[in-house]
Formats: sequence, structure tokens, C-alpha cells
Amino acid sequence: MTPLLLAAALVLAAPPAAPAGPKVSGDTKDCLRCHETATPGIVGDWRRSRHAQTTLRQALGKKALEKRVSAKKVPDDLLDVVVGCAECHTIDPESHKDTLEHGGFDVHVVVTPRDCATCHPDEADEFDRNLMSRAYGNLANNPLYHSMADDVNGIPPGKSDPVTERSSCYACHGTKVDVAGTVKRQTAVDEMEFVVLKGWPNQGVGRINPDSSRGACTACHTRHQFSIEQARKPEACESCHKGPDVPAFGVYMSSKHGSLYQTVSDSWNFSAVPWVPGRDFTAPTCATCHVSLLATADGTVIAPRTHEMGDRLPWRLFGLPYAHPHPKSPDTSTIVNKAKLNLPTELSGEPVAGAVIGPDEVAKRKAALKQTCRPCHSQGVIEGHFEQLEHTIETTNAATLAATKLMQRGWAAGAAKGPAQGGSPWDEALERHWAEQWLFWANSTRFSSAMMGWDYGVFEGGRWDQSKGLKELQEAVEHAEKAKGKKR
Amino acid sequence: MTPLLLAAALVLAAPPAAPAGPKVSGDTKDCLRCHETATPGIVGDWRRSRHAQTTLRQALGKKALEKRVSAKKVPDDLLDVVVGCAECHTIDPESHKDTLEHGGFDVHVVVTPRDCATCHPDEADEFDRNLMSRAYGNLANNPLYHSMADDVNGIPPGKSDPVTERSSCYACHGTKVDVAGTVKRQTAVDEMEFVVLKGWPNQGVGRINPDSSRGACTACHTRHQFSIEQARKPEACESCHKGPDVPAFGVYMSSKHGSLYQTVSDSWNFSAVPWVPGRDFTAPTCATCHVSLLATADGTVIAPRTHEMGDRLPWRLFGLPYAHPHPKSPDTSTIVNKAKLNLPTELSGEPVAGAVIGPDEVAKRKAALKQTCRPCHSQGVIEGHFEQLEHTIETTNAATLAATKLMQRGWAAGAAKGPAQGGSPWDEALERHWAEQWLFWANSTRFSSAMMGWDYGVFEGGRWDQSKGLKELQEAVEHAEKAKGKKR
Amino acid sequence: MTPLLLAAALVLAAPPAAPAGPKVSGDTKDCLRCHETATPGIVGDWRRSRHAQTTLRQALGKKALEKRVSAKKVPDDLLDVVVGCAECHTIDPESHKDTLEHGGFDVHVVVTPRDCATCHPDEADEFDRNLMSRAYGNLANNPLYHSMADDVNGIPPGKSDPVTERSSCYACHGTKVDVAGTVKRQTAVDEMEFVVLKGWPNQGVGRINPDSSRGACTACHTRHQFSIEQARKPEACESCHKGPDVPAFGVYMSSKHGSLYQTVSDSWNFSAVPWVPGRDFTAPTCATCHVSLLATADGTVIAPRTHEMGDRLPWRLFGLPYAHPHPKSPDTSTIVNKAKLNLPTELSGEPVAGAVIGPDEVAKRKAALKQTCRPCHSQGVIEGHFEQLEHTIETTNAATLAATKLMQRGWAAGAAKGPAQGGSPWDEALERHWAEQWLFWANSTRFSSAMMGWDYGVFEGGRWDQSKGLKELQEAVEHAEKAKGKKR
Repeated sequence: MTPLLLAAALVLAAPPAAPAGPKVSGDTKDCLRCHETATPGIVGDWRRSRHAQTTLRQALGKKALEKRVSAKKVPDDLLDVVVGCAECHTIDPESHKDTLEHGGFDVHVVVTPRDCATCHPDEADEFDRNLMSRAYGNLANNPLYHSMADDVNGIPPGKSDPVTERSSCYACHGTKVDVAGTVKRQTAVDEMEFVVLKGWPNQGVGRINPDSSRGACTACHTRHQFSIEQARKPEACESCHKGPDVPAFGVYMSSKHGSLYQTVSDSWNFSAVPWVPGRDFTAPTCATCHVSLLATADGTVIAPRTHEMGDRLPWRLFGLPYAHPHPKSPDTSTIVNKAKLNLPTELSGEPVAGAVIGPDEVAKRKAALKQTCRPCHSQGVIEGHFEQLEHTIETTNAATLAATKLMQRGWAAGAAKGPAQGGSPWDEALERHWAEQWLFWANSTRFSSAMMGWDYGVFEGGRWDQSKGLKELQEAVEHAEKAKGKKR
Repeated sequence: MTPLLLAAALVLAAPPAAPAGPKVSGDTKDCLRCHETATPGIVGDWRRSRHAQTTLRQALGKKALEKRVSAKKVPDDLLDVVVGCAECHTIDPESHKDTLEHGGFDVHVVVTPRDCATCHPDEADEFDRNLMSRAYGNLANNPLYHSMADDVNGIPPGKSDPVTERSSCYACHGTKVDVAGTVKRQTAVDEMEFVVLKGWPNQGVGRINPDSSRGACTACHTRHQFSIEQARKPEACESCHKGPDVPAFGVYMSSKHGSLYQTVSDSWNFSAVPWVPGRDFTAPTCATCHVSLLATADGTVIAPRTHEMGDRLPWRLFGLPYAHPHPKSPDTSTIVNKAKLNLPTELSGEPVAGAVIGPDEVAKRKAALKQTCRPCHSQGVIEGHFEQLEHTIETTNAATLAATKLMQRGWAAGAAKGPAQGGSPWDEALERHWAEQWLFWANSTRFSSAMMGWDYGVFEGGRWDQSKGLKELQEAVEHAEKAKGKKR
Repeated sequence: MTPLLLAAALVLAAPPAAPAGPKVSGDTKDCLRCHETATPGIVGDWRRSRHAQTTLRQALGKKALEKRVSAKKVPDDLLDVVVGCAECHTIDPESHKDTLEHGGFDVHVVVTPRDCATCHPDEADEFDRNLMSRAYGNLANNPLYHSMADDVNGIPPGKSDPVTERSSCYACHGTKVDVAGTVKRQTAVDEMEFVVLKGWPNQGVGRINPDSSRGACTACHTRHQFSIEQARKPEACESCHKGPDVPAFGVYMSSKHGSLYQTVSDSWNFSAVPWVPGRDFTAPTCATCHVSLLATADGTVIAPRTHEMGDRLPWRLFGLPYAHPHPKSPDTSTIVNKAKLNLPTELSGEPVAGAVIGPDEVAKRKAALKQTCRPCHSQGVIEGHFEQLEHTIETTNAATLAATKLMQRGWAAGAAKGPAQGGSPWDEALERHWAEQWLFWANSTRFSSAMMGWDYGVFEGGRWDQSKGLKELQEAVEHAEKAKGKKR
């Protein structure tokens, strides 16, 4: 019998041999001894991860374009083991305020971007330049945010409170996670001591961690698979990019791209690195355009990987209150406009001087973004697409200007008490109609144009609502002006 | 040639042998003789079902934890056949008012939970204790419901009617299915007589069946596969748990759990019994937390199967008008508050005395629910999660109280005609704004907190709308009070 | 060693032999020479298509029911090659105004239904009778549309403009694609000349093409796979049939049918022709009921394929402003009602005389539609379903009548300036409330009843909003009448 036949027979007959597989460290084995039983969901999830199946030596040995780690060098003791519990939860214990002795190890609860940077330093650096990494402070350090939070969350009239904010804005923006103390709990093993955390649980993208680092990689790469597959699918973005303020997920799903994703992606490969258009997928997801390393099958880079999504985002479509070129710095809390409001644009529409990227950088980012369209679209299609998007930015900004002028007339006429009168700009019904003009309808319309989810630009919270709201605003303001005129 | 090699060769060469397969009863074979042609969709659906592929003897012979039937014993003639057309549609013909002679058999159209209880008695019992099983009567026997139905469905001003209610509220709540007569129809075979049913078709969860039983197992386990796989997926719940009043589906899908379900569940096993976290799935669906039998891989029960979802639901988040501990009895139609309204809470917010479960039962159910979090989450995460949920229940109830006080002031000021003035509480525009406060926005906000679909707690029908609506209500009421003051 | 064993061994040992595969034409090979590199996404997408894997001789040789092409005969030079770049983009160059010399070929950019008709003539003919094929002109030639577009898109007050309309209404309805000139661009190969197109890119269903043909097959069969699988899935329809005006996608997904599609369709066959209920799928999608060729496993036709969806659509549920029997002609722009508005119904509710199909045709189409229910439902279920749908059409039309009478009173009382007063019917806030009555809530309610997505008939933009809006309208009109009365 030939060896070939023997192999054939064995393949058919034998149960799959337990793969020798890469080595689990002794420390992680210690963790698994209890946690296999205590938290089988976590362990099972991790076992499916690339972390559990690859050593760093294997990861570092890949060809440049196929690498999933950006570290040039990692500590020797990590090289020949898989990335398990201990490798992440016991790293650099002194820097983590939530470190506590646990089963003989100094374990911290919250694994942070700084921990992940051990193997993924470039991604951590990029993310640190990303607006998202400042999502906590960009609210927390912005007085205008607090005025909105009080008016929205503080019902009945009153201040917003930390627990409500953790369940609302900071759920996506990230909380500040602090150690509040420790507590003893009886476990299956023994009575054990655990840290008590404030602002926890939270997987917000701009979380402030107990080691003072910013962000949560798990916002997109959910623990404990941390998979690239999940992050490449639009549903990873859905958790935060939903709602009329930023309906990116719904817009995408109803676009041609989303239609293809939903109908023919069964045969796509969401795990390949680099990601090859045409071979691995035939329509882009969010990650394709804004994050992923794209290359041709023969290894020519189409777009480099970046975790600073701004690299492929010329404009911030999200109007505050107007859409504008992306802010220069990820920390936007220091930007103040002439009306002394912490906004990146003036009430008249221009960006705050010096706060946003200039024309050259806009052009560079636009070129980088367009590059991702090239594998599937001719130049004529690309130019036509961006022409209409830029036009939509203009017209929706014009609508916001019209609304803002009306609101200012309304404030002057006493229809509501605005900032100039010492009031909040969101605590009266009419002011909410104004806010919805730019926070909801103008944003939806722009996302619709950007990603071809056309109904979001018309009847699904788009121009229909925008034009209707504008008329309501106008009628209310004119009514107030008339009433004021009469009083005089 | 070794037998092993022979096997290898055969596997590769031969077409798969038609499996001997379990036996179809003679009666069912009679059904199939026509229905294979008459209703090939039904037959094809059934062939894919476990019912068509397993005998009860096989089902009863499973190990305790692996059982999908709860009967200790079934009629002998059912033991060695699969569960086919005749086994369900001809069972106990006398009790079914919709039984009619059909091709030589006494066949009833509507298979009911009482029929299913032949093999699944525990599930039927549990379901009978479930609020859902009374979903019909809890509307039909509640005068307040009829007042809302008239005001909502009876447009232009007029009463609601049975056909409209079947197309709206009772579509999910279930209709009362009655035999209205019979009709003769020409079929491919012959002229045949069929029953005519009122309130039909309907798969509502609280349907009143012609055998006087309550409910429809097919509300979640759609006919004729009746699959556990479907019922374990969130889209089974979507049909009814959608809309701003109870946006559970949308909230789930936009949560981290939903994100994982949507991005990595390709490799999950939705059919395993028991259902093993970490092995079979790595994030929960609706069923995981509220229904399914969960166990560890070595057979330790994490949570027992229950079709009384209340067992793992301490509170009713759905506010009537306030969120409250779950009602004691599934029949809520007899609960009347001090304002003589059929509601489980007073207008001031307290639960109606004696109508809801007490603190001990709340604690017990909370513990049962938390048990399902344990495989994947530490105690600190679980406590932190429920802390914010209970806080959200408090704050949203407070907002409902503020709105209700305003509405009562509005009624007093003549802004609308309320129950105390002999009017309906929903037939004027202002009253609808009040109703949306608790029926839509407070509910959405609570579901958001319960299942981490955060945007539903803010801009997607959450606190933004709640606070905006409250301001509108307040301005309208103050305006009415001012106008009334002037009149005096 | 037996040949059988040899085969077994080879299967296990050898890499899959490159399939000889059908022949790519020389012209297409020329295209691929550059485009494999220039647009790898397009080429990869096409390689996955049936077009790239089948010759027309193979396609024409199929049994009647299994045919995917309807041509009796095609040009000889197409017979033995696959359908590649050149086969579509260089066909009949003279008729295409966007033809330009490109790499030695006369290439046109926009492949049109007339091109597709080379192999799919029946589908092109059917589509030409379909309302959808006139989606551009039915807006562009309708003055009432332009008045709405100006009021909705033209914000701040002003006319709508072509680029905005391409990003909104015409995105789905289709643009008029015109050649605006040419431009020279540097490519990887050389400087080349390209046509510049107005109204481009666009995949709208009623697009007017540079060869003067109507429509875009790619609206549903997205380029360059053009797959039947995509078109059979509901997400193909989502891109346009979304939003409160026509929430077909959401309604379907939340129905029992949609629930099955979402939970058990992993095992369905979306590519089989004919499409066999029970064997290939166990719940219908949009295409099943309105488009696809359905047959039993033994080849009996249940419903013939049609690309005139009207063949299985008795009523137009989309109210203008009332739901009505389908228009006779796909070109509806010539229909004018007694109020001189381009609407298929009078303001009092009756269809415009002669403009819609008569009772016989309604009955015929209803029968054709019901035929698709038969494989899975008894006659009693089908009759019960359509009884409630027709009842919903009646009640929602009655609600629209009530709203329209109120609006007419409002116009008379000066609450807004209507068409009779020389005003637009949509440029004031109150008029928008009237328009939402029929354009949003009545439509949603009808779609809900038609496809069993029940929440869309109640709280998700259904009867709740309809009855609430009606009350608001009534209160505003009564207020205006009172004010007018006082003035006199």
C-alpha cells in the first residue's frame, strides 16, 4: 500500500488527531484551571480566537503584508506561547490601578490599548491620533455637552447623573473607569477579594482606563475573540453608529454596498490579510473604506491599514452644527467659537479659524478615500459620486444656516431663551426643533449622500423632515415676532 | 484490501444510501398522498423538521439533559412513528370545534398547545403560567384597551372593528378563533367541505383556540418546522417585539451581544440541547437569557429551560404606565388601580397593592436572570450592569410621573378632556404626547439599558424624545392654565 | 489497485485540477489584460457570476423550465463564449451615445436593458410594461412632483436642483443619463479619453440611458455578478423600498416570512430555476410572490416568471393619495384628476375614470398573486389574509378621506394656502401633517396588512401615528375656523 493510500485511509478513518498546537503558557494554564469552569463562555470564546491559536513567533514571521502584529520585537517570554489570559491580564501590573492579587497573580481587570500595544503598537498609535480615542474628554471637558446632557438626561428637570450618563452618552463615548475600592466575594473556590470599579462595565471607544490610557480596542474587536472578522463587518459599527444623529449603519445596509453584503457575502473571506478586493470580497464594508489594509492579489497596496479613520475622512459629516473639514486635533474640547460655544464651527457656518484641517489635507484625505473606490469603479463614477456628496454638504449646511438664523430671530423675539439671554440652547421645545435640524436631519441627509442609502436623505429622516422642521420653526418664530410686535 | 480502505473507497464512490429512516404512520402517509402535491411547501418544510426525522421512542430515550420532549409517557401508537400530519391534526378530535371529516379522517385545522402537550407537557404548563398565554384576554377583558383601540384603530372617528383588530393588536396578542360555519370548495381531488374560521389566520401568542386552549406554539416555533433553531434566534422575537413601544429586537441587534450574533454566529450551534455557552455560542440571544436550558459541557445546569419567561424577568419594563415588578398572575385584566383604570400601577407610580410579585420573588428572578450572565461575565460586570438598569427604571418612572402630573394639570385646566371629565385618555393630541412619554420613550430607554442597545436610550426614541416631549407637554399645559386663568 | 481506489487517492492527494472551463472571447481577454489590474474588484465580481461560467450555447440548451435566458436565438459569435466585458460593453455601439474608442474598441459605459435583451428579451419586454421602467418620467413629467421636490429639496426656500435630485428622488427612480462631453485622464497605461456623463452614477430602476432605453437591470441584479440569488433576497429590494412611505423591507423582515428567511434560510437554494417551494425554500421572499418562476418538483408551473411585477399586484398600496387598483399604463404622468392634479385618484377617493385596471383585471391579478400562497397555505388562510388586507385598504382610504376633508376645510379657513388659493400643497407645516397621513401612515398600515409586519400597522408608523396626526389636523383646522369666525 502506497503512503498516499495510507494517508487517504487515515484521513477517513481516524478521528482528527488533537493538534499538537501552539503552547499555552503555564500562567494561562493556571487561569484556565478555574476559569474553564467559572467562565466557560469567556474561555470558549477565547479558544476560537486567533490569540489562542498562534504564537507571536508565528505572527512575527509572516510576510510584511500578511502581518497582523506591528511590533518589531516582543518580550522573549511571549514569543513561543499563545496570547492567553495571563499574557494580557497580568502585563505591567504596576501601571494598572485595578491590579489585585488573584490566585497568586497580580491581575488587572481592564485590558487597555496600552496592553495591546505590546504586540500592536502601530494600531495603538494610530488610534491615539483618532478622534474616537478622545470621545470621553470631548464630551466631559465641553460645557456645551453638559448643558445638553442635563437637558436631555436630567428628567424631570434636574442635572444629569453619572449612572445615567454611563447608560447613555458615555456608553459609546466611554466612561472614566476608576477603582472605587475592593469587595470580598465567595467564589466556587474560596472567598476572594475583587476590585470595585466605577464607570464599569463599559466598552466605549474613548474609555479612560485605570492605567490612564485612552480607548477600548474591544469597542470594535469584542472580547475575547478580538476578531478582525467582526471588526470588518458593519454590525461591529452598528452599536454606536445608529440613530438619527449618525445613521451610518442603516444607510450602509440600505445601499448597494450593503445589499451585496447582505445577499452575496457568504462566499467572502473576512479574515484575509491583506484584504483583496475581487478575491476576498465584492463590495466594501465600513472597514474597507476607512480602516483596512487593501491590496491586489499580487501584493500591490491599494490602501494601507490605519486605525486613525480620519486618514480616509476629509470631512466630519456630523454637524456641530455645520459639517466641516475634520478637526486638526483629536481633542476638540478646546475649540471655542466666537459665540463662546465649544463648537468647531461658527453659528454662521465657517469653521473656527485654525481648528480644522486645511485644503491640502482635505485633498490628501479625499484622494486616500477615493483610492478605496478604484478597484471597483471608474474615475467617472467616483467623481460623480463625490460631486453629489460635496453638493449635499453645501445644501445641508445652507439649511442649517437658515434654521440657525430663524432660531436667533426666535431668541430675539422671546420665543425661547437662548445662550445670549443666559439660557440653555436645548431646554425649550422650539430649541429642540432647531437642534434636530442639524443633529438629525442634516446629518442623516449627508450620510445618505456619502454612502448611497438614499431613503435616509428623503423620507427616512432626511430632507422631508428637514424642510418640514424648517417650516415649523419659521411659523413659530414669525408667530413670536408678531406677538412681540403686538405687545410693544 | 483492508475493510478500512474499502470503506474509504465506498465513501468516495457511492452516492449516499437512502437512509432507512424512521417510520411514517399510515395515516400520515394518507395525508401526504395528496398534500405532497397540494401543499408541497408545507410538506417540504415538515420534512426538514425534527418531527419528520425522529420517533418518540428515540426522543424519549435521550439522556435527561438532552431531551427535547418532557412527556414521561406517550400513547403507544405514537412511539415508533415520526410526528407527521395525522399525529397532530387528528389528535383528540372531539375537543376541537374545528374538526371536520377530510379524506376519511377527523381533521382539525388549528393545532394547539393542548395538542403539543401530548409530548411537551412541561412546556405547555410553563407557557400557561406565562403572561403571553393571556395576551388575548389581557386586552379583550380590559376596558382601557378598548378605549385605546377605538381611538387608534377607529379612524375616522368611530369604533374599532374585529377585522382591523386582527390586523393590528390581536395579530401579536392572538385572536379568538371561532368556527363560523363550513364551505364547499372544489379541490384537485374532489369537491370538499372545509370549516370557515373567524379570527383566522392568526399566530398570535395568546390566541384562543377552537379547543378553548390558549396560545400558539407557532408564534415562535413557526410551522411546519417548529424549530428550536428559529426560536433561539432573535428574529423569531422580532415579529412582535419591535416598534417604539417595545423595541427589544432593535435594541438587541445594536448591542454588543447582537453585534456578535450578527458577525460571528456562523460557527454557532443553534440546535444543541442542552445549550452550552462557549462551546455552542459566544453571545446570548433572547432565548439564552429568558428561555433556554443552559449547561456546561460537563452537564452542570446553568439555567433550566422555561417557557414562562417571567421566571427570568423580575420587572416588567413595559410601563403601564410605570415599569413595575412582574404581575403575580398572568391574567392582568382583573387588576384595577385606585383611579379605576385597569392598570398594574397607580397614576402616582406605585404598583397596585397585591397585584405584583414581592421583593423576595423579584430577588429570586433577578438571581435566575443573572445566572445566565455568569458564563461570560465576572460578578463586577453583572452588578454594574444591573445597577444602571435599576437606576434607569427609577429615572424613567420619575419622568413618567412628571409627565402624568402635567397631564393631570392639563386635564384640570381644560387642555384636554380626561377620564375624570368622562373623556378617553387618548383621543386628543395632547394626550397622545403624554401617552408617548411612557408607551414609547420610557419603554425604549429601559430596553436600551436592559440590553445595551444604547442609542435607543438617547437619540433613537430614548431620552431625547422623552425630554423633548416633556417640554412640549409642559408648555402646552402652562399655556392652557394661563388661558384658563385669563378666562376667569 | 483498483481504479476506484486510485480515484479515491487522487481526490485526496491532488490539488483540484484547473477546470477547462468555458471560453472567454478574444475581445474580453483584451479587456481583462488591463482591467485585471485596473479594476480587480469588477473582474473578481464578474468571475463569480454565471455570465463568466456559462456559454450561451449551454444556457440555450437547458430544458424549458430551467432556462435563464429567454432568447430563442442569439448572434452566432456569442454562442460559444462566456458573457464577458466586451460582449456587453461593445454591443451595438452606434445606438449608445456614450460610446467612445477605448483600447481599440468602441466601448459604452452604460449597459442598458436593450443590451441585456440580446439574451433576455422577454424579461426586457416585461420590465418595459412595469411601472418601474417609467419611474423617471412619472416624476419628471408630473408638475405635482416638481412642486413637492421644490418644497422638500429646495431648502432653504428655493428650487430643487439636479444634483440634489440625483441624490434623493432620482437615486431610486433613475436619472436621465446624458453625455456632457469627454475628458482626458492619465491612466496606468496611457493618457486616455473618457466620456463625461450627467446624472451619473445612477442605478435607479427607471433610468433613461444614453441609448434612450429605459431602466437599469442592475437596480436589482447588481453589477457585475447580476445574480439571481441577490435579486431573490429581500435586501435587493431594501435599497428603495424602505422609509415610512414604502416600508416594504422592514415589514417583510418583521413578518413570519421574514423571520423564517432570517433564521432558517441557510439551507435554502436561492439559485435553482425553476424555484421549488418546499424543496428550495420554506418561506417566500419579495421575488417569490411578485417575480419568480415557481414550480413543483415534478415541473408543474405554480407561477410563471415575470418582470412586470404588476402581473401579481392587483392594487397599488402606495396611496396617491388613496390606494387604488393598479394604473393601466406604466406611464402615469398623463393621468390628471378633476382637481387638475396629476394623481390617479380624485381628492374624494375614487380612481380617476379610465386610468386604472378594471375589476376583471384586479380579480385576475389577485388570483395570480394568491397562486403563490398555495404551496404553503390552505384556501381558508389565504381568503382570511386577503379579507383583512382589503379591509385595511378600505379603512386607511377612509382615514385619508377624513384627513383630506379636514385639509380642505383648513385651506378654506386660511390655515394654509392650498392649490385652490394658488399655493403648493406641501409648503406649510400643516400641509405636511396632511401629506404624512397618506404618504406615510396609511401606506405603512397597508404594507403591514399586506405582508404581516404587524407593528408597522400600529406603533411603528401605523395607526397610532395616523390617528394622532388626524387629531392634530382636526384641532388645528378647528382652531383656524374659530379664529376666522372671530375675525368676521
